[in-house]
Amino acid sequence: MKKYLFTGFMALYLLAPAFAQKRATWIWYPGDFEVWLGNNMQNRRTERGTFLPPFWKLDSHYNLIDFHKDFDLTEAEEVALAVEGKYNVKIDGKAFPGYPKRIRVPAGKHKLSLKVFCQDRVPAIYVKGKNVVSDDTWLVTFEDKEWIDETGKASDQSGTTWLLAGSWNFDNINTPPSEFRLATKPQPAVKTTRTGKSFFLDFGKETFGQIKLHGLTGKGNVDIYYGESAEEARTTATCETLDHLEISQPAKRDSVMELTKAFRYVNVQVDGSVSIDSVSMLYEYLPVADRGSFRCSDEEINKIYDVAAYTLHLNTREFFIDGIKRDRWIWSGDANQSYLMNYYLMFDSPSVTRTLLALRGKDPVTSHINTIMDYTLYWFIGIYDYYQHTGDKAFIKQFYPRMQSLMNYCLGRRNKNGLLEGLAGDWVFIDWAEGLSKKGEVSFEQLLFARSLETMALCAQIANDAPNAAMYSKLAADVKAKLFANYWNEQKQALVHSRVDGVPTENVTRYANMFGIFFNYFTEAQKQGVKQNVLLNNNIQKITTPYMRFYELEALCAMGEQPYVLNEMKAYWGGMLKLGATTFWEEYNPTKKGAEHYAMYGREFGKSLCHAWGASPIYLLGKYYLGVKPTAPAYATYLIEPKLGGLQWMEGKVPTPDGEVTLACSTKEIAVTGTNAGTGTLRFSSKTRPVCRQGEVRATGNGQYELTVEKGKHYVVSYQL
Amino acid sequence: MKKYLFTGFMALYLLAPAFAQKRATWIWYPGDFEVWLGNNMQNRRTERGTFLPPFWKLDSHYNLIDFHKDFDLTEAEEVALAVEGKYNVKIDGKAFPGYPKRIRVPAGKHKLSLKVFCQDRVPAIYVKGKNVVSDDTWLVTFEDKEWIDETGKASDQSGTTWLLAGSWNFDNINTPPSEFRLATKPQPAVKTTRTGKSFFLDFGKETFGQIKLHGLTGKGNVDIYYGESAEEARTTATCETLDHLEISQPAKRDSVMELTKAFRYVNVQVDGSVSIDSVSMLYEYLPVADRGSFRCSDEEINKIYDVAAYTLHLNTREFFIDGIKRDRWIWSGDANQSYLMNYYLMFDSPSVTRTLLALRGKDPVTSHINTIMDYTLYWFIGIYDYYQHTGDKAFIKQFYPRMQSLMNYCLGRRNKNGLLEGLAGDWVFIDWAEGLSKKGEVSFEQLLFARSLETMALCAQIANDAPNAAMYSKLAADVKAKLFANYWNEQKQALVHSRVDGVPTENVTRYANMFGIFFNYFTEAQKQGVKQNVLLNNNIQKITTPYMRFYELEALCAMGEQPYVLNEMKAYWGGMLKLGATTFWEEYNPTKKGAEHYAMYGREFGKSLCHAWGASPIYLLGKYYLGVKPTAPAYATYLIEPKLGGLQWMEGKVPTPDGEVTLACSTKEIAVTGTNAGTGTLRFSSKTRPVCRQGEVRATGNGQYELTVEKGKHYVVSYQL
Repeated sequence: MKKYLFTGFMALYLLAPAFAQKRATWIWYPGDFEVWLGNNMQNRRTERGTFLPPFWKLDSHYNLIDFHKDFDLTEAEEVALAVEGKYNVKIDGKAFPGYPKRIRVPAGKHKLSLKVFCQDRVPAIYVKGKNVVSDDTWLVTFEDKEWIDETGKASDQSGTTWLLAGSWNFDNINTPPSEFRLATKPQPAVKTTRTGKSFFLDFGKETFGQIKLHGLTGKGNVDIYYGESAEEARTTATCETLDHLEISQPAKRDSVMELTKAFRYVNVQVDGSVSIDSVSMLYEYLPVADRGSFRCSDEEINKIYDVAAYTLHLNTREFFIDGIKRDRWIWSGDANQSYLMNYYLMFDSPSVTRTLLALRGKDPVTSHINTIMDYTLYWFIGIYDYYQHTGDKAFIKQFYPRMQSLMNYCLGRRNKNGLLEGLAGDWVFIDWAEGLSKKGEVSFEQLLFARSLETMALCAQIANDAPNAAMYSKLAADVKAKLFANYWNEQKQALVHSRVDGVPTENVTRYANMFGIFFNYFTEAQKQGVKQNVLLNNNIQKITTPYMRFYELEALCAMGEQPYVLNEMKAYWGGMLKLGATTFWEEYNPTKKGAEHYAMYGREFGKSLCHAWGASPIYLLGKYYLGVKPTAPAYATYLIEPKLGGLQWMEGKVPTPDGEVTLACSTKEIAVTGTNAGTGTLRFSSKTRPVCRQGEVRATGNGQYELTVEKGKHYVVSYQL
Repeated sequence: MKKYLFTGFMALYLLAPAFAQKRATWIWYPGDFEVWLGNNMQNRRTERGTFLPPFWKLDSHYNLIDFHKDFDLTEAEEVALAVEGKYNVKIDGKAFPGYPKRIRVPAGKHKLSLKVFCQDRVPAIYVKGKNVVSDDTWLVTFEDKEWIDETGKASDQSGTTWLLAGSWNFDNINTPPSEFRLATKPQPAVKTTRTGKSFFLDFGKETFGQIKLHGLTGKGNVDIYYGESAEEARTTATCETLDHLEISQPAKRDSVMELTKAFRYVNVQVDGSVSIDSVSMLYEYLPVADRGSFRCSDEEINKIYDVAAYTLHLNTREFFIDGIKRDRWIWSGDANQSYLMNYYLMFDSPSVTRTLLALRGKDPVTSHINTIMDYTLYWFIGIYDYYQHTGDKAFIKQFYPRMQSLMNYCLGRRNKNGLLEGLAGDWVFIDWAEGLSKKGEVSFEQLLFARSLETMALCAQIANDAPNAAMYSKLAADVKAKLFANYWNEQKQALVHSRVDGVPTENVTRYANMFGIFFNYFTEAQKQGVKQNVLLNNNIQKITTPYMRFYELEALCAMGEQPYVLNEMKAYWGGMLKLGATTFWEEYNPTKKGAEHYAMYGREFGKSLCHAWGASPIYLLGKYYLGVKPTAPAYATYLIEPKLGGLQWMEGKVPTPDGEVTLACSTKEIAVTGTNAGTGTLRFSSKTRPVCRQGEVRATGNGQYELTVEKGKHYVVSYQL
């Protein structure tokens, strides 16, 4: 594969436009900043003041990197250099002495190279001349193998794999990657209650950042108890997060807590002679704008959408994280949903690739991602979706070897039946659900495995690796065939949950069945069977996490059950709102009462009240109500299939790599504007013959119509739902 | 293999004496400090002020480590803790808040665990109570996989591999591993010449350390040019190393150069108003004592031994390095000779294992060690020899998986004939020798490959991996059979150098032939053929590096040519001494003249004049003249086969894991004292019937005799050579 990769990126490189951009940016070995930042973020977790790091292997960046690029200059130029690490600089292999900050690159064809060692941070460079700038067209390697013989002659056969440099948005020479911090802004509490010298604050809604104590002085202790609920902030013995400060501060000064926390309520207790003038916070966030939107005739749905969007923003940080209070880790299954929601809200690709790369880490693979079998498989699926939405072949080509080694790990863990079954050290997660069996060969895992293999087949094609593309296709077909042979129960009209000792169980759960629908693995008859016997069957164990409700409702939407799903959304997410939620939760069981809702993992306030996987209405409303989705990578072609699902009207935008699809839809009119690049197909049903002055509406039978939406054009269709 | 490893170390662990030592020492994940320190050392190289890092992949330590040990205490105890990194501390899974420096461990059975994250240094801990101490009986892992379910229950099936902690000699709580520095002592020059305000210093012999400028003051530049030869220090334009300082120092002060250098001569040039009172150095060294010794009737040989010992000491530092002036890198082929010399001089096992671990680094393997095919193979051979000399099974058990993955890399690079042939990125080194062909399948590489596979078979047995032991044995036999089938030329009575396109060349070189002798791969007839037609044949290309002279002379010694080799040593190493060498060189060609000797790699002073591989007389004199070598691991049994080789008398010591073999031998008397542990066999020839009062001498025929040397006993044998 190394051979291939070389060819692959060379092609890319040679095709890069001659008028390459002159924007200089900090660059590094691709994936390394993501690994490094992931380590930093995931090791910031504390639980009541105790450091609580991840329980899986963390990788490190490569500490010694060679960067180079060939330039052809019409005149010599002065070039400024900045480097994270110890380095040398060479032109055409000849080194400058010391650690130059400015060099002169002569006119003509020259190779500029820097070699950097750095253990604590990611080796990174910034090069800024007129034409000579560092950007993602530079080539990098962690082993240049540039030996010499006894005469000083360099080796003439290279076995080195060069990749394109990684970068993000560090365009300023003075802000190297290691200095990256999220943005902050001051924010006051909406309600402050003082009792003696202590404070109880309500910030009005769930938020995230650092508490700031203004005018702190005196001698004694300050204890700060954080709560997502008022109960939590008041229950100092069992709240999940806290700060303890010992103060000896003669003159008043402002003090900002070192660690960021999630909270709505903050309980600040002081003793001794300590006094504080007031308390506020620094809200911390990733500055990323919304490009998608949704508004409709139902105010409860609008509120759900807004709270979901806020929930997703709070959990879109250095990476897509699970929840802001507790783990703040990158969990692949959680992140997979954030990717999908992101495509309908911010369409921020760097957040997707940062997260994918941090999750993947480095070789060797010694366990499943996050130790969870399904989470490894979601990683592949995340790449599948990323490609569908962005068409980013360069990403796939660069990281295809890491995809291969992760898939090799999975293939090496198949049992004698060629299926995935939990071995020692494998966490089969599926969902937080009481009594859910993880024993034997679980159908859900095989289903994700099949889709992962399909992803590998696709990516192998993109990476021009035809032999392995064929191999992965064959493996995918094989696993899919086994899925139906082993688990499809004709009588129950459903996939059963598992096989134990080679015998299918009688247990039917929702998981494999609902994924099978939107993976399009079922025949039409099977779909209907699954819908009636599983999805709409109250005797099948109910799902109580927004995590799996995401997929359950997606499956129903994919079968045209938008009216039913709208009611479910109002009941479930609306249910949380009625309980005062300002962000959506990790788990919601409507049968629970009061503060019972806050408990999880055997801890009184263990549950996260701001969990990314709670934000799925963003995705459902964009993809299945506005009905916009790509049908070819990067929205080269796409579908607009609006479904009001009982709403009077709706309007909104769905972002694509190049512009947004803008849609307004009532029961009588559909107005749509295409993106700047692709070709859309508007598909809708109408009781009357639709009218459109900007394009030709085609009847496709059974009261169904289609309209081609050309790039950048606006269409208004009169119709009758 | 994980399964096995677990069983392996558990056995070790359970067998550890109940009265485990109470010495506390800093501990870490095994191999990680070595990798980290190797990175630091190998990235200190500069060439005329330019940073010159290695060209192969450098690995990193695991940054997140779990340490634990179970204790059973009769009474509670106070325990002090020190940690490199961010950490938590738990007793029986229950965490202390914050970052405690002292804890109380209650009486009874308890598990004490610490989890540590550290990116820039190696996660390391120091635990010091009465019985609760950190040492190499603790267990460590980089992935504990301690997940919980939704009720808070921990996972009940562990897939975690636990290893025994790594340690060295960091027994003081205040000197953590990251603070490690070699020892230094002040040393004056033996001759100082002042010219104006500048200095030219001669330290009397090759040395290593930092230059110290006493009473430095004024404004201007100080340029320091270092030379292993006076010519180099004087030739400011091309000397290999230098320092440049810009001084603005109103009051006198002493200034120590930041970087260590190798030199005998130092040329200190100042300008402006700069003045210096005097110049001295801080000699830097690894404090490790000699346990071996050698003295004989030939003063030139004694001088050669002393200079070789000094050469080896200068190159025995953080690791066994190649040479002190230039690379200061860890080269596996060079290190392999240092291991062998070390067994006859210091017997410092930590220096061997530090070097082996730093060379090996981490998975995945992406190139040969140091990028050199033969250097990967020497790594295996180094382990073979380490085991023979020390019997350290624990080391092999801990690192057997890394041996396997490295061997898998080699096996994956065999050509269609099952032989190793240089692929793109593989450096086939063999030796620095003019015009030496590296094309096709080189016999020397196959020979090292066969011995490496034999090593793997041995280590697989030690690691209780019987199936793979059988596999490696079969592979070794196969490669060995191919070696003779493909390369043995009956007419030339020698192995030819290579096959190109499946056809053996006519070219005979010394390399494979001399190794074949001491690997004992030849029949007796083949040996004699090789000796006459290759080793003693002046028409075969001569070896000009002490590196390969090491093995050439070993082969001759192994065939009883000690008198010949003694003369060669006097001519070759004595030749360097006659040219004024105070340490032995990287290369010596007696036909060169004057300063020609200093050139290499196309650079005027490119050659290293203090190269570890120049020190082989230590090994040859200990193993083949004193004649002491293990015949079972760790000298459980050993041979003492003294060969005067023309000397009138010799005496000396050879270190073993438990005491030294002490020997004095003349043509009439052999006096020997056994080690504290093993059983030796003294083997010698005598014209008359030998007499020994302390033991029974057995005649074995043809004037050969043997005497069993019991542990700790002294024997005097009268005989007649």
